[in-house]
Amino acid sequence: MSLLQETLDKIQKIDETAKKKSRERIDILLKPVGSLGVLENIAEQLSAITGEVIPDIEKKAVLCFAGDHGVCDEGVSAAPQVFTELMTPMIAAYRTGVGVLSRLAGADVFVYDVGMIPDLPADCDAVDKKIRRGTANMRKEPAMTREEAVKALEIGIEAANEAIEKGYKVLGTGEMGIGNTTPSTAIFAVLGDVDPEKITGVGANLSEDLTKNKAQVIRDAIALNQPDKNDPVDILSKVGGLEIAAMTGVMLAGAANHVPVVVDGYISTASAAIAIALKPEVKDYLICSHASDEKGAKFGSELLNFAPFLHMDMRLGEGSGAALAFYLLDAAVAMNRDMATYADVNMDVV
Amino acid sequence: MSLLQETLDKIQKIDETAKKKSRERIDILLKPVGSLGVLENIAEQLSAITGEVIPDIEKKAVLCFAGDHGVCDEGVSAAPQVFTELMTPMIAAYRTGVGVLSRLAGADVFVYDVGMIPDLPADCDAVDKKIRRGTANMRKEPAMTREEAVKALEIGIEAANEAIEKGYKVLGTGEMGIGNTTPSTAIFAVLGDVDPEKITGVGANLSEDLTKNKAQVIRDAIALNQPDKNDPVDILSKVGGLEIAAMTGVMLAGAANHVPVVVDGYISTASAAIAIALKPEVKDYLICSHASDEKGAKFGSELLNFAPFLHMDMRLGEGSGAALAFYLLDAAVAMNRDMATYADVNMDVV
Repeated sequence: MSLLQETLDKIQKIDETAKKKSRERIDILLKPVGSLGVLENIAEQLSAITGEVIPDIEKKAVLCFAGDHGVCDEGVSAAPQVFTELMTPMIAAYRTGVGVLSRLAGADVFVYDVGMIPDLPADCDAVDKKIRRGTANMRKEPAMTREEAVKALEIGIEAANEAIEKGYKVLGTGEMGIGNTTPSTAIFAVLGDVDPEKITGVGANLSEDLTKNKAQVIRDAIALNQPDKNDPVDILSKVGGLEIAAMTGVMLAGAANHVPVVVDGYISTASAAIAIALKPEVKDYLICSHASDEKGAKFGSELLNFAPFLHMDMRLGEGSGAALAFYLLDAAVAMNRDMATYADVNMDVV
Repeated sequence: MSLLQETLDKIQKIDETAKKKSRERIDILLKPVGSLGVLENIAEQLSAITGEVIPDIEKKAVLCFAGDHGVCDEGVSAAPQVFTELMTPMIAAYRTGVGVLSRLAGADVFVYDVGMIPDLPADCDAVDKKIRRGTANMRKEPAMTREEAVKALEIGIEAANEAIEKGYKVLGTGEMGIGNTTPSTAIFAVLGDVDPEKITGVGANLSEDLTKNKAQVIRDAIALNQPDKNDPVDILSKVGGLEIAAMTGVMLAGAANHVPVVVDGYISTASAAIAIALKPEVKDYLICSHASDEKGAKFGSELLNFAPFLHMDMRLGEGSGAALAFYLLDAAVAMNRDMATYADVNMDVV
């Protein structure tokens, strides 16, 4: 059996007993019931995922995947494609947004090349897992073959499995791939049955005219490739991206291993949409983080019934929002572990 | 000259030069311009407040003030009034929401009794600065005298000055006072010219019927006392609270000393409204934190042009949201201090 199928088969529903026990404890903490809102929900969800009322979530990592996009030939990105190559070693060296925010959170960043056009530089800390040198231009042909999409999913699964074996208790998803808001928007357009123009945004500061062109490119790509809405791997291969597929793999492996996965922003949410389409049970293992400032982000979040709690107007990607949200998970566990209860003051719950 | 007047006179405009320098640096960091959104704005604001592009903000404290409210006689709170007395020592012992979240943030909590009805227990770490034993019932008479309101403002100023002298670089505001969403709502109703019913919420889980009654109590208190919209101290004394005034004092002292003050939720935002009404320049020294789940919070934030970035559905108070937001300030400074620049990769800014 393939690693993908094995992983999908392994995914179970969350632990309702631990979830209930956790909520019971949250509700006797010394505060009005419900008054810590999302912190309470995160604490409860972490219990449901891990099976522990007070889980150990200290060791955290962002898994960041780099890939290029053939559709950049259509002028969909403000940043030159060479930035994928330039940024990837900088991410691995903790010199970019995700690295700085991960260091602050006490988290590690692991970077994988799943599809950059050039070779990784020799002195780069990223891991070479290149499947192909960039996707094909989806306006002219499928972005990749079905086999390549499965391979990318499995590289994500392997990366997550390896991190979990090393003792990481929380994973975040990140990506670097100039042009990748385009396939992400295509994924939402297909899964959400919406005209691309309604959800196509500026990515890395694209002009208004070129953003209109970008929407048309996505429309054309969908019309040409006719991805099957009911076959998530078909969507990934025809209008997706290698790093998007790998992040989906991380989410599947997290769910299979009862490890929470923090979903970053727009691109990561597209990966989540595919993961949930593959196996709806995955949803409960995912913790959304920030409300990306990218135009289609609200649509994407609503499609998945996500309620991002960090409203930072961020749209950087790399996993930067996931890294920032790690702290809120620590806060949720600290709340449940360290707060006094009503019993401690001999009072009834309010 | 009074400490209040002296403090008000000392407040200057923020440092536009440092603000500009900070933004110039933020804009050459290795990311699309603007793509770290609110983190960028916080970094810029911290520079504008402190005069430093990369300020030292390590040492942080929440100043938490406790006071009782005579208006509790009107059935405006779900929690019994005795909770002010029970919770205050627990807050000082780091056993409640603000304490747990402050510990996680590496911050300290200092608690002051400015108006609890009973004496502080002997073994309590809170500081006795009691002005009176609870406010009067504002439905029947002014909550306090003008002199008492000024005294409460000055206790807040003194507490902040003392913390700043001890080397604290960031202050957060917190409170404990059963019934204090009622005076807070009254303050917003007066300053925002709105009928109390539109912004009166459940506080600590009040029933629907009693919430209607609460709105009527606020309406009656305003009608009886006729606070002068153009005299913030008059509003404080007639329909405010001792802990609310003290938090206003912290904000004034922070501004006077170029120290950022993180505003917690609903009650703290009412304090901020008074502070800004007293001296509009204070606004730029305040960093809002979370969007409280209390009904009138959105109105209060919009009144002050605040854009809270933590959407946690929290409504606990105590300074818990401010403590949680401290981390975002660290993240903003880390971004500006540690990220690589475009020059490091020899590329032009995107």
